[in-house]
Amino acid sequence: MLRALVFDVFGTLFDWRGSLIRLFERFGRERGVEADWPALAESWREAYGPSMERVRRGEVPWMNLDALHRTSFDELAPRYGLEALDEDDRKRCVRFWHELEAWPDVRPGMARLRERFVVGPLSNGNVALLIDLARRARVEFDVILSAEIFRHYKPDAETYRGAIELLGVAPGELMLVAAHNGDLHNAAECGLQTAFVARAEWGSGQTSDLAADAGIDVVASDLLDLAAKLELEG
Amino acid sequence: MLRALVFDVFGTLFDWRGSLIRLFERFGRERGVEADWPALAESWREAYGPSMERVRRGEVPWMNLDALHRTSFDELAPRYGLEALDEDDRKRCVRFWHELEAWPDVRPGMARLRERFVVGPLSNGNVALLIDLARRARVEFDVILSAEIFRHYKPDAETYRGAIELLGVAPGELMLVAAHNGDLHNAAECGLQTAFVARAEWGSGQTSDLAADAGIDVVASDLLDLAAKLELEG
Repeated sequence: MLRALVFDVFGTLFDWRGSLIRLFERFGRERGVEADWPALAESWREAYGPSMERVRRGEVPWMNLDALHRTSFDELAPRYGLEALDEDDRKRCVRFWHELEAWPDVRPGMARLRERFVVGPLSNGNVALLIDLARRARVEFDVILSAEIFRHYKPDAETYRGAIELLGVAPGELMLVAAHNGDLHNAAECGLQTAFVARAEWGSGQTSDLAADAGIDVVASDLLDLAAKLELEG
Repeated sequence: MLRALVFDVFGTLFDWRGSLIRLFERFGRERGVEADWPALAESWREAYGPSMERVRRGEVPWMNLDALHRTSFDELAPRYGLEALDEDDRKRCVRFWHELEAWPDVRPGMARLRERFVVGPLSNGNVALLIDLARRARVEFDVILSAEIFRHYKPDAETYRGAIELLGVAPGELMLVAAHNGDLHNAAECGLQTAFVARAEWGSGQTSDLAADAGIDVVASDLLDLAAKLELEG
């Protein structure tokens, strides 16, 4: 019996690309700087995997996602003509990741899912970042599960197994909800149930994760649709 | 500037003694067993410190609070004439700790505090237990901080420092709210602000923690009073 749902955050619950572009555009107007903001947003997001990989391989000590975002921003800034940004500006840009907007179905869908299930993020975002996202978007969780707690980034099995242990459930009583097939496959290998929600997180140019792979347990168009499907099953 | 509040749970937010007595009385009627339930509730609670101490000294491997509660229940059962309880009954009794009632001011007081501050438990209770308590009492937290995450029980400094790190705050931006002077002193040594809320958690026979020690930053009669006092300061 399903008892708890954990959610991928960037892309699945929050529109990082659209939000970052809007935040950068406002920042650029205020500071009088121009850059290819959509390309910067995408490059920044693309730096995320390799930066975590350095932590995973032990090449750098543990760093939370805020710290990884800062490192990759500093690496990208010269390429986008932003090398003149001072310390305060750079800190402000890193904070944009705490100010993302949720997809419109997330707040009502999460509330409905929470009536029957324990709900929380299971994200590579650090705890303070996830708290800020939830409070700003008024999305109510029962718990915050983060790579920062496990000192391992997804897709390391320690994250999925850590969620199982802290929630005190059997693997099959827990479902990962994500817009990314890879995340769901890794969760399934740890025994979790899986739900795919398609999101156009990369905009019109998106080429991957357009549909669920075979073997995903539930495919939903958004969280309200997921709630309806789980209620039918239950 | 104060940004976040963390709360002791057993005694400070939840009436473990009154709740356990009521749950045991109902259990006793259903199962046709009698025992000195108030004395059992108090003995069980008193076993908590020594049982954590065994973990702290490394005499036993890490065990979460559910596991410690089970061990101490099994030790106490013969003394209360409960040695005949079977496995299911014992599991049910351990689950009583997930079903405690909050003091009446906790739900409205927490909602009011949460308007201005990040709020969460900082408890020796395990994560699943804290989630269950919050959901049943409809107390809304932003995050669950538990000894289970830090693999250290309060009053180890790793718990207070762990809360600081995960919340991404400076020590002085975080306040511990507790009905126990000892907990508050230990938090203050890690740089946290402190608030004392008096609770008659041991009933009319309570002899300790009747009032705040000198040096506590804020003394409040309950969480609504605490909210009013912090709003005046802010």
